[in-house]
Formats: sequence, structure tokens, C-alpha cells
Amino acid sequence: MHHFGLKKLEGLSKIFRLNLINSVTGYKSAHLIGSVSPSGNQNLAIFSSIVHLGSNPALIGFILRPKTVPRHSHLNMKSTGIFTLNAISKSQIKDAHHTSAKYPDSVSEFDKTDLEPEIKQGWKAPYVRGAKIQIGCSYVNEYLIKENDTVLVVGKIEHLYIEDQLLGEDGWIQLDKGDIVTINGLDGYAIPNLIRRFEYARPKE
Amino acid sequence: MHHFGLKKLEGLSKIFRLNLINSVTGYKSAHLIGSVSPSGNQNLAIFSSIVHLGSNPALIGFILRPKTVPRHSHLNMKSTGIFTLNAISKSQIKDAHHTSAKYPDSVSEFDKTDLEPEIKQGWKAPYVRGAKIQIGCSYVNEYLIKENDTVLVVGKIEHLYIEDQLLGEDGWIQLDKGDIVTINGLDGYAIPNLIRRFEYARPKE
Repeated sequence: MHHFGLKKLEGLSKIFRLNLINSVTGYKSAHLIGSVSPSGNQNLAIFSSIVHLGSNPALIGFILRPKTVPRHSHLNMKSTGIFTLNAISKSQIKDAHHTSAKYPDSVSEFDKTDLEPEIKQGWKAPYVRGAKIQIGCSYVNEYLIKENDTVLVVGKIEHLYIEDQLLGEDGWIQLDKGDIVTINGLDGYAIPNLIRRFEYARPKE
Repeated sequence: MHHFGLKKLEGLSKIFRLNLINSVTGYKSAHLIGSVSPSGNQNLAIFSSIVHLGSNPALIGFILRPKTVPRHSHLNMKSTGIFTLNAISKSQIKDAHHTSAKYPDSVSEFDKTDLEPEIKQGWKAPYVRGAKIQIGCSYVNEYLIKENDTVLVVGKIEHLYIEDQLLGEDGWIQLDKGDIVTINGLDGYAIPNLIRRFEYARPKE
């Protein structure tokens, strides 16, 4: 096996280290975060760090990189109090990846891709039309991670829209029925197939 | 599409809501966390919330559920200062899932499954033998998420072992070359295949 110790990690070129450390933690969730500024500018940005925090109340978290450059999604959700999470399917990966390009605040990523905004039930933050899972979240809180000045943002799920065929009788959503992708590193997109579901694990005698 | 609003979410049965909210955030990383108590009891537990926090220094985070029951992995890493993360491959999913069963502190999951501990380079926390990515981490800090009493644990990567064939020239690790799995909800295991890598995204004219 290839071994990297602390000294070797610190001596790597920036790009090599970015690729390595971003892919070494395994597969990541793939979401488009939709938001809107108080003046009505819509924003859409790809995130690969959405994590489950709890089911009751239904809370999610995600990591924002250091505040060295403007983060429109973050500003928008703090000022309006809401945002959306939209699962990314196979047919959307090229446009989804393009939302990581740095556009000024006045430019909507919806205008630079074929992705279309969808407003539902008075929720002003835009969903992505056609996304097979759409989540309307309220902004709840954030925690500064002082070790590297990243921020854990906490959101509460207030609306869920799930394509009918993905939703099982026990509440489980079978993601591969929607061709939902996962992210490998910074720029790799993969499509999973379910192998197996297990029972709740109980100790052996 | 199926719609769940806040009232409907709050009124769901516990199991339905657990399945729903745990699967709605998309694919999760799949890791076995290895740790050891000061008296030498090894512990192995599956986690699906490992998230990338930063590349330089190389930091990871993961979420621990509320402290209503003993969390051996957590106690061990706080007292010894170290733990390991081990990627889960297809052939290991049954045993990996079984580590979620609640055993007393004195019982090692290594003795209840076919998974074997591996000690390398004096790192006392056990790796999982044969795991295609093994990460030696030091415990750095933790943050209480007061909204639901979960904890974000922050770890620093000090050792990386990667099977040679997975590691590309630019540092990117192609996870599907190691049959590394991803988790769908609480109990579903899926195996991804790479579709495409993209270039760094730059604004269109």
C-alpha cells in the first residue's frame, strides 16, 4: 500500500493534496443548494458535504469553506432564513458541476446552465425543477470550526418532495431508482447500485 | 411527487421517519472506526457521517448521536487521542453492518465478525486488515450541536494507507477500483461506478 505520513502530507503540492484528501474520505452526497437574496437574485451551488444530524427534529448540516471569498448561498440563507437542497441525478451532472464556477452575485447559475428554478408552496428559495428529491430547509444555526475556520451550518427540514417511485412503504428512499449520483473527490461523479439492505443488527450469542 | 410538510413529518411513526430522514440526504460515506481503550480493549464501529473539513491541515469530521447510551469509540478516542478510519468494501458489508449491534465495552467487534485488527507503525488504534483505504487520525476537538445534542468530532489525518491501484498520478483516489461502498439510509449498501470526472469549472462568457 502507498503510505503518507504527516510530513509527507505537508510536503505535497497543493493540487495533489486537494485531490488526495478530498477523495480519501469516501463517497459524498451530491446536492444543489438553491437560495435567493433579499432583492430576488437566485443562486444555485453544488455541495458535497450535506450530512444527516437527526431525524426528530429533522436536521441536516453542511460545511462551508473559510470565508475568504463571498459565499452567496450562505449570505442568502442567513438573510432570508431559508434554502433548498436538491438531489443531483445522472442527467444533471454537467450543469451541476458548472455551478461551482465563480460568478458574481448578480449572475444566477440558473441563467448559465439548463437547470431551471421551481417555486413551490410559497417557499421563496428556488428548488431545481425535475430534481427527484427536493428539500425545503430553514436556516437554524452555525458553528465555527476554529481548527480551520470552516463553518458547520445547521438546517431544519420543513418540506420534502420525493418522486413517488423512490419512496418505500417503510419510509426508506431507494436512491438508485432516481439515478441519484454520489461524488468521488472534487470532480468525480459516480452512480451507485443497491446491493443489499440489512436488518437492524443485534448482538450474537 | 410525494410531499411531507412539517406537521406531517412530526406525525410520522418513529421507524418511518428514521428511514425517511436518514435516506433523504443522499449517499453517505461508509467507514469502520477502530479504537482502543486505555486498558487495551479494541472497538470497531460503523459510521456513515464522515465528512471532509479541509485539506491543509487534513481534517475530517463526523457526527455522534446524543450521549444517551455509552459510545465506546468516542470514549476511546478521547482517552487515547487516536482512532482509525477504514473504507468498507463490498465483501465486508455484512460484518461492517454487524458492528452496529450493541455489545458491552468488554466485547470487541473484531471477535464477533470476520474482520481482523491490524496494528501498523506503532499506531495503537487498530486498522481493519484488508481495508483498501486506512486512515490514522488524532482526536482534535469536538463541538456540541445544541439543537439536538449531537456532537461534531474533529480529527486530523496523520497516516494514510491507500492500495496502490486506487491512487492516481494527481492524487485522486478512484474509489470504485476498490469496490468501496456507499450507504443509502440506515441499512442499505450500494456500490458506485464512476461516470465522469470534470475539469475545474470556470465561468462562461
